[in-house]
Amino acid sequence: MTAPLPNDARAQLDRLYEEMRPKSLYPLWEVLSALVTPTPRSPAQAWKWDYASARDHLLRAGDLISAEQAERRVLILENPGLPGSSGITPSLYAGLQLILPGEVAPCHRHSQSALRFVMEGDGAYTAVDGEKAVMRPFDLVLTPNWQWHDHGNHSGQPMIWLDGLDIPTVRHFDASFAERLEAAEHPETVAPGDSTRRYGRNLRPLRGSTADRRPAAQPLFHYPYAEWSAALADLAAAEAPDPVLGHALEFLNPATGGPVMPTIAAHVRLLPAGFETRPRRSSDGTIYVVVEGRGEAKVGDEVFTLAERDLLVVPSWREVTIRADSRLVLFGYSDRAAQEKLGLYREAVTNA
Amino acid sequence: MTAPLPNDARAQLDRLYEEMRPKSLYPLWEVLSALVTPTPRSPAQAWKWDYASARDHLLRAGDLISAEQAERRVLILENPGLPGSSGITPSLYAGLQLILPGEVAPCHRHSQSALRFVMEGDGAYTAVDGEKAVMRPFDLVLTPNWQWHDHGNHSGQPMIWLDGLDIPTVRHFDASFAERLEAAEHPETVAPGDSTRRYGRNLRPLRGSTADRRPAAQPLFHYPYAEWSAALADLAAAEAPDPVLGHALEFLNPATGGPVMPTIAAHVRLLPAGFETRPRRSSDGTIYVVVEGRGEAKVGDEVFTLAERDLLVVPSWREVTIRADSRLVLFGYSDRAAQEKLGLYREAVTNA
Amino acid sequence: MTAPLPNDARAQLDRLYEEMRPKSLYPLWEVLSALVTPTPRSPAQAWKWDYASARDHLLRAGDLISAEQAERRVLILENPGLPGSSGITPSLYAGLQLILPGEVAPCHRHSQSALRFVMEGDGAYTAVDGEKAVMRPFDLVLTPNWQWHDHGNHSGQPMIWLDGLDIPTVRHFDASFAERLEAAEHPETVAPGDSTRRYGRNLRPLRGSTADRRPAAQPLFHYPYAEWSAALADLAAAEAPDPVLGHALEFLNPATGGPVMPTIAAHVRLLPAGFETRPRRSSDGTIYVVVEGRGEAKVGDEVFTLAERDLLVVPSWREVTIRADSRLVLFGYSDRAAQEKLGLYREAVTNA
Amino acid sequence: MTAPLPNDARAQLDRLYEEMRPKSLYPLWEVLSALVTPTPRSPAQAWKWDYASARDHLLRAGDLISAEQAERRVLILENPGLPGSSGITPSLYAGLQLILPGEVAPCHRHSQSALRFVMEGDGAYTAVDGEKAVMRPFDLVLTPNWQWHDHGNHSGQPMIWLDGLDIPTVRHFDASFAERLEAAEHPETVAPGDSTRRYGRNLRPLRGSTADRRPAAQPLFHYPYAEWSAALADLAAAEAPDPVLGHALEFLNPATGGPVMPTIAAHVRLLPAGFETRPRRSSDGTIYVVVEGRGEAKVGDEVFTLAERDLLVVPSWREVTIRADSRLVLFGYSDRAAQEKLGLYREAVTNA
Repeated sequence: MTAPLPNDARAQLDRLYEEMRPKSLYPLWEVLSALVTPTPRSPAQAWKWDYASARDHLLRAGDLISAEQAERRVLILENPGLPGSSGITPSLYAGLQLILPGEVAPCHRHSQSALRFVMEGDGAYTAVDGEKAVMRPFDLVLTPNWQWHDHGNHSGQPMIWLDGLDIPTVRHFDASFAERLEAAEHPETVAPGDSTRRYGRNLRPLRGSTADRRPAAQPLFHYPYAEWSAALADLAAAEAPDPVLGHALEFLNPATGGPVMPTIAAHVRLLPAGFETRPRRSSDGTIYVVVEGRGEAKVGDEVFTLAERDLLVVPSWREVTIRADSRLVLFGYSDRAAQEKLGLYREAVTNA
Repeated sequence: MTAPLPNDARAQLDRLYEEMRPKSLYPLWEVLSALVTPTPRSPAQAWKWDYASARDHLLRAGDLISAEQAERRVLILENPGLPGSSGITPSLYAGLQLILPGEVAPCHRHSQSALRFVMEGDGAYTAVDGEKAVMRPFDLVLTPNWQWHDHGNHSGQPMIWLDGLDIPTVRHFDASFAERLEAAEHPETVAPGDSTRRYGRNLRPLRGSTADRRPAAQPLFHYPYAEWSAALADLAAAEAPDPVLGHALEFLNPATGGPVMPTIAAHVRLLPAGFETRPRRSSDGTIYVVVEGRGEAKVGDEVFTLAERDLLVVPSWREVTIRADSRLVLFGYSDRAAQEKLGLYREAVTNA
Repeated sequence: MTAPLPNDARAQLDRLYEEMRPKSLYPLWEVLSALVTPTPRSPAQAWKWDYASARDHLLRAGDLISAEQAERRVLILENPGLPGSSGITPSLYAGLQLILPGEVAPCHRHSQSALRFVMEGDGAYTAVDGEKAVMRPFDLVLTPNWQWHDHGNHSGQPMIWLDGLDIPTVRHFDASFAERLEAAEHPETVAPGDSTRRYGRNLRPLRGSTADRRPAAQPLFHYPYAEWSAALADLAAAEAPDPVLGHALEFLNPATGGPVMPTIAAHVRLLPAGFETRPRRSSDGTIYVVVEGRGEAKVGDEVFTLAERDLLVVPSWREVTIRADSRLVLFGYSDRAAQEKLGLYREAVTNA
Repeated sequence: MTAPLPNDARAQLDRLYEEMRPKSLYPLWEVLSALVTPTPRSPAQAWKWDYASARDHLLRAGDLISAEQAERRVLILENPGLPGSSGITPSLYAGLQLILPGEVAPCHRHSQSALRFVMEGDGAYTAVDGEKAVMRPFDLVLTPNWQWHDHGNHSGQPMIWLDGLDIPTVRHFDASFAERLEAAEHPETVAPGDSTRRYGRNLRPLRGSTADRRPAAQPLFHYPYAEWSAALADLAAAEAPDPVLGHALEFLNPATGGPVMPTIAAHVRLLPAGFETRPRRSSDGTIYVVVEGRGEAKVGDEVFTLAERDLLVVPSWREVTIRADSRLVLFGYSDRAAQEKLGLYREAVTNA
């Protein structure tokens, strides 16, 4: 409401409000300015999780609860500004998952789209629709909407990865479906690496008599660290960093040329030692993992030091500057994919 | 968690949880079954608003608060299952707006996409990017994302319409931007009816030297009752109703052949007297307005009688059956547009 | 070749050419300037067909040959610059078809996409995939790629329409497929007007249990004169004509918001009496039918007078100016749809 | 026409035809069966060019005519069934280009889309919009529609490549535009390899302040042999060949997930020694280059032996079987991209 009311009118209004409430009717003018804001006012906070500390708790959970009991043994990274939501931003979820040697996370599928980003360990697998991907540190693995997936760790060491999902978005739209496969593991219907071989290098299978093995809409699900880090290093060797983003590459769905999943976009960035990005805002809330190096992120007025494997969340429209103390490599994911589809995405750079 | 734990383990876990909480770490296994459900479990309730009662409150608000004070004089239809959310479903908003003779709702634009559906009154206008649409009962008018719009009532009678917006979705993505035009009214840059003349009948302007006047992505914003009711009546005269939906037509964006806006789809349905739809579920939460006739809606186990201008909300995945006591005409809008873009939409019919 | 050669080299080259010829090898440098021209140099000529004269020949053909004998009794309008090609432009075909009372053109389907534009007569029908459209003067009817179609004339008068097809384009790509239905007429599976009722006014069927009756990619095939001429007249009553095109509306495929068929675009234009368009070139060769009025078209250096039902072809990139002596209404179709899909379309206006 | 006519009617018809001819009117019924055929009847012939023989003629042309005189020193591979057309199929062009050490082919751009496939030589370059690609044997390089390109050979050996263009298609649509840059070479605006680094591995540049350097619609133009042959070999090592195509990968435009250019699709295939494909027809006319190995192609009733660097054209809808005597690697390009956009593409496999 634009102006205060005389006491009398105020009282009458309050009476009206009281009468309306049981009928589920409420005055817009009392809340309009909070509903339609001139710029985003996210309830989420900028926040950083020290990997060492989170890892310690996760391993303790590993001692206390079996994979079988937990179904998925995961610590949720819940944004302190969104208590009870299980969200790291209003639209996205993040968790750290532990699979101990010999464990299996049983096969299921659901409406939620997921990515896995390997934090440590080497040799566990994710299988998607019957194709296994062996996971190595900093590999990106997708398990898109309604595709069967299971995980297992036949290596000799614990495996920890970051789970990034669109759980809050699927809940927002009341559209969660899920089911479990009767067997814990999906039969291995194709050899590991099949989709990478078929879609790995700006090539795709020519149509023949063999049916395509992966959904045509999302043919690739494994983006190995060895590949993306080499591409990023090549870029950094050849040119100056972009002043706003540094060297930055987005993971691409080869079927569309767009983001990896309809709700989630993912990218990697490399900032040379000593480089500092220009301040930038964007309407997508973003989760970062430090893959390599040390540095500092300034988010609004808060400053976070960054060390290897730390996790940082930057809510929508907070101004961010990142400084690299040593060569700094970041992985990030956000809801930009959904925002672009719905016509909502914006970004702005603060000019020097 | 799949099985109860021994007391000892439980206690150790609880200690772990307590230590983790300050670090914003939470156990997924305690909440997983609520986050990823086998089918949608919307917190929203099915609910009906009697128009007469809501109207009465709205007119009283009209006595107590001026349009100028309210900026928008609107009663929010808040779902009783979503208290404090201002949402009629988790993703959509609905409100009843009153503009009294002589009033103007000042010009602004915002990230939120809106539709107006006229409940009563005749002759007020909505102007979108400088083009006025004169609003008559049961007309549908769009004010899409980031297009300037203002309303005014130069007729001699109060005007009430339903506002349908994607406010909760824009908030979910933390992507609200808004601004006001300095002037209350946008200059009238084209004659009323311009976009309808240009896009009204499966025709569109051929490119010439004259710039297109409306955004190419959304060229049409006025769908008059006279047009849609005639189309629906023609359909009903020519064929038997579909057993699941009755006679049903969706409003179409002529630039894409898809739903009217990226986040909202809208449709109308006609059920002949005595007709009853087969039970159906869909993952989009839907808001209905009774345009004509009487009948009954069964939503899950609840039964709602329907009379002219009543408003009904059906949450995601509730089984719905609608029975027409007289010829029954409904207008509906939902978040199906967004769900389809994000790969989430589903529907199912209960077979006889 | 950029420069003349000494006689000796010329002779050696000629010997080389002679030796290469049996091996199907030819020197590009002798023809490059004709293959890759700075602007289009169409072999097609601008040409006008007087309707009265063409009609006279067509009726004589009607006396001499039965519909059964002819399969399709059509006079091809072949461009005099493209002898033997049966094309009115290099990519399109045009013909005048006559169906006498009682005749039927048997049901078939083919890769070629076709439009019919009614020149005279009233009450014959085209049936597309089992839905009949009753044809009235200046109606546009589509029979898209691979849809069953048959025609019949149960009225008491001869019916003449223009056939516009992409025959040369399908031949260019060696992609002609065709088959005949065993029966002469396709069973009438839906009532006439079904698709218009369902897609006629920026509405489309909502998905129900009833399968869509027309191909989802092309749901509408009848664009009646009564509809398009009213839309054009409304436009002309409300605003000044565009200086380049006059009042111009393109027929739209409601499933895509694009041209009516993948290879052919169609439009109508209205020029007020006394109006003259600014000179314009475009890379699509266009065929015009004068629906109403008199005027003059200047194409390059040639001038054509225009009278009702005359047919005019304007090849690619010829500068065109059209002057209306009385209110002039034109129907036109061209290959712009294909050119846009292939990234080839261009247009340019000569500035005053 | 379906049946013979009595002599008298025939004579009358012939008189009618004679009178119509000066008016550019022709009887469809005399030619309909040739215009709309039940299956494609391409005038093109299957044909093979021995590389050694073509190369010999090309080198002789190199002695007789300078690059400067020729502008492009190319031997056209004209289909013997399409005399005078300069086409290898009705819609596509192929030529063998020679650039001698020290020569430059000056910078120009045109509506025609082109690909280059390197036959021999190592180290010449193609520059596209100011980015150089160093060309090695069997590399694929694109110069899409309206992008500046020039070639130069600063290596010490002759360079020969295959030019594949859509010249006949651009001519078919009368849509040829071309212009020369004033300078022979485009300034080198980015370092070689830039686009490959940025789009090479299912990654793409994230938007920053640096403008994208290549057209967003076609960001990649160099597909090195080292990359595609490794992908093909990986595929062959991992699985059995598809019975219809062998191991087959299509080159992909990373911006769309579709064919490399709007008018041309390109692919590579590997057939293990002793493998024979099942007979197959498709509506795209295809040009093959033998990259490696020996074998035999049966096209309709004709048999062609295949040796390294030989060139073979297979017209639309001819049944093809390919047999590999040794491991056989083929590169192919066709007009499938255009046919799919226009709704014309078909293929069929002969069942065993």
